[in-house]
Amino acid sequence: MFTNSGVPFTSIESVGEFRLIELITRDFKSFSPHLVQGIGDDAAVIAQPDGSLLLISTDAMVEGIHFDCSYTPLKHLGYKAAITNFSDIFAMNGKPFAITVSISVSNQFSVEALQELYSGIQIACKEHEVDLIGGNTTAIKSGLHIGITVLGKVAADRISYRKGAKPYEILCVTGDLGAAYAGLQILEREKAVYLTNPSIQPDLSEFAYVVERQLRPPSRKEVINFFEKANIVPTAMIDISDGLVSEIYHICKASNVGATFYQNKLPIDYQTIKVAELFELPVTTYALYGGEDYELLFSIKQTDYEKVSAFRGITPIGYIEETPLLVRMVQADNSVVDIKPMGYEHFRSN
Amino acid sequence: MFTNSGVPFTSIESVGEFRLIELITRDFKSFSPHLVQGIGDDAAVIAQPDGSLLLISTDAMVEGIHFDCSYTPLKHLGYKAAITNFSDIFAMNGKPFAITVSISVSNQFSVEALQELYSGIQIACKEHEVDLIGGNTTAIKSGLHIGITVLGKVAADRISYRKGAKPYEILCVTGDLGAAYAGLQILEREKAVYLTNPSIQPDLSEFAYVVERQLRPPSRKEVINFFEKANIVPTAMIDISDGLVSEIYHICKASNVGATFYQNKLPIDYQTIKVAELFELPVTTYALYGGEDYELLFSIKQTDYEKVSAFRGITPIGYIEETPLLVRMVQADNSVVDIKPMGYEHFRSN
Repeated sequence: MFTNSGVPFTSIESVGEFRLIELITRDFKSFSPHLVQGIGDDAAVIAQPDGSLLLISTDAMVEGIHFDCSYTPLKHLGYKAAITNFSDIFAMNGKPFAITVSISVSNQFSVEALQELYSGIQIACKEHEVDLIGGNTTAIKSGLHIGITVLGKVAADRISYRKGAKPYEILCVTGDLGAAYAGLQILEREKAVYLTNPSIQPDLSEFAYVVERQLRPPSRKEVINFFEKANIVPTAMIDISDGLVSEIYHICKASNVGATFYQNKLPIDYQTIKVAELFELPVTTYALYGGEDYELLFSIKQTDYEKVSAFRGITPIGYIEETPLLVRMVQADNSVVDIKPMGYEHFRSN
Repeated sequence: MFTNSGVPFTSIESVGEFRLIELITRDFKSFSPHLVQGIGDDAAVIAQPDGSLLLISTDAMVEGIHFDCSYTPLKHLGYKAAITNFSDIFAMNGKPFAITVSISVSNQFSVEALQELYSGIQIACKEHEVDLIGGNTTAIKSGLHIGITVLGKVAADRISYRKGAKPYEILCVTGDLGAAYAGLQILEREKAVYLTNPSIQPDLSEFAYVVERQLRPPSRKEVINFFEKANIVPTAMIDISDGLVSEIYHICKASNVGATFYQNKLPIDYQTIKVAELFELPVTTYALYGGEDYELLFSIKQTDYEKVSAFRGITPIGYIEETPLLVRMVQADNSVVDIKPMGYEHFRSN
């Protein structure tokens, strides 16, 4: 009826997610003098009347792209959807206080299934004292689509952007890396076995930790609380959703710096190593490029080093350098390699 | 793999959208003392440090459910997606100031198509001085899914909830009713003609107004500005997205009142009447049950009647009554009929 003949067709895959966002949002102008940070960090930042900062972030999870209902219990899925949004607020050194949840769902899902999903969201909300303040439910033809917007807050003198890292500061990560991807591999393998022979029930006990990391990611609330008590403000911070290297590049790009980190400092769980052996892949690949860890990557001043090292669950992995966008890894044999981003972009990988 | 055998299956259609929301959210508790209004109005309301109120609302539009790309220009769609969200803020007597946009899209859509969509969002944002502050884009297997969260603000002494209507107050609507549904019928008819014979190009000029009402709904910002200048605060307000009757019931339920309105006061455009004749349906049906008008329905004190009547674009249609949930229409012949809700619920209609 309304044809678009003559209009060029540039595929979304060919430009990638980050360039796409640039292309579709570049004509927008800002109106509010209170908008401190728009698109381009883990959350938008709006100055409040009392000088504190309001944080807003939004994200979507789609069946078949971000999760597979055949091995994802709906309660876990709801929990994960909420936690991954809270993670964007933690990445600004803030605390989440409210979410809206927008669910689009086909009639293959029952009321009981949605109740399971919401019970997981509710557990995450209760653990973090976050209010569910709104949302909507919509019918779609197939599948399940979960959109969450989270509001958070942080004092103006405690916020961490991506852009504040300075040379010689120390680069740290929380928890361990690569486990969520290792868990995904195990679940995918068990699914393949099950599809071949449905009488075989999966035994995931050997890899319980990595499977849990995939299905039910951690919340790093305790790290944000530690920063507050220890009076530390990370100079730059981001959450690790697309793999360590991708996030290091985001900080380096925003801060106009480079970084060097040590291969043998990367915190990797024993089960992740076992999975890497099983799949005959270098375990460092899991740590550098595995997605969905939802750990925090941040830089701190050298004067905060001792305080931070004393906190169990934070690992210094390297330091910030002067040369913009030069990211290097010191390998176990002390040789140094340049590391290039190979971010997990949904449009490229699907 | 993880089977749910033994779990009951209650279909979503069988409970309807409003009951579903009750069922999935009833176990959530509120934590923040600043949360003034959670789920249950057009927007959530959070008290700000300076005493003003922050408004948050979220909504989704899905291809094949809320729009048909075969006759919806993407620029119009983007504009509509933004305006319908702003409408939820207007319904609280507030003003929108920021949105996040979450797009899930299949690779059938080009970068240029998304730019068209965002150019419509941008026009709406510019007209209303609203900042695009965040969002995300995700690949999906088919179709287009647009999720928008809007933030707005309103002074604490100027907010209108659904719950404030009192007996003998006057019930008013903005603009005219039923036009968006009439426009949808015309578009669907032309699509059917086109599918039968693609060489026939649609001629929509005779029904340009109602088609525009469907594709590019109005913004009632000028009404909110008028309330401010005239120092009027509607005692209750809601936007008309699911048809007049459904919204009257929402106000009556929240306010624990009833309402009487006059059939011959309902503002209906000439083109809507022509479409009703064409489809041989009573035009009142369009006004009472047609969705997507995005007009405002509100109650005012009798002392504000003269000020409101003087404003072009507002029509008093009746008054609030004491008996809870008794909604009546005085017909052209002065007979009175009870009116029951027949709300447009997506899960029931698909």
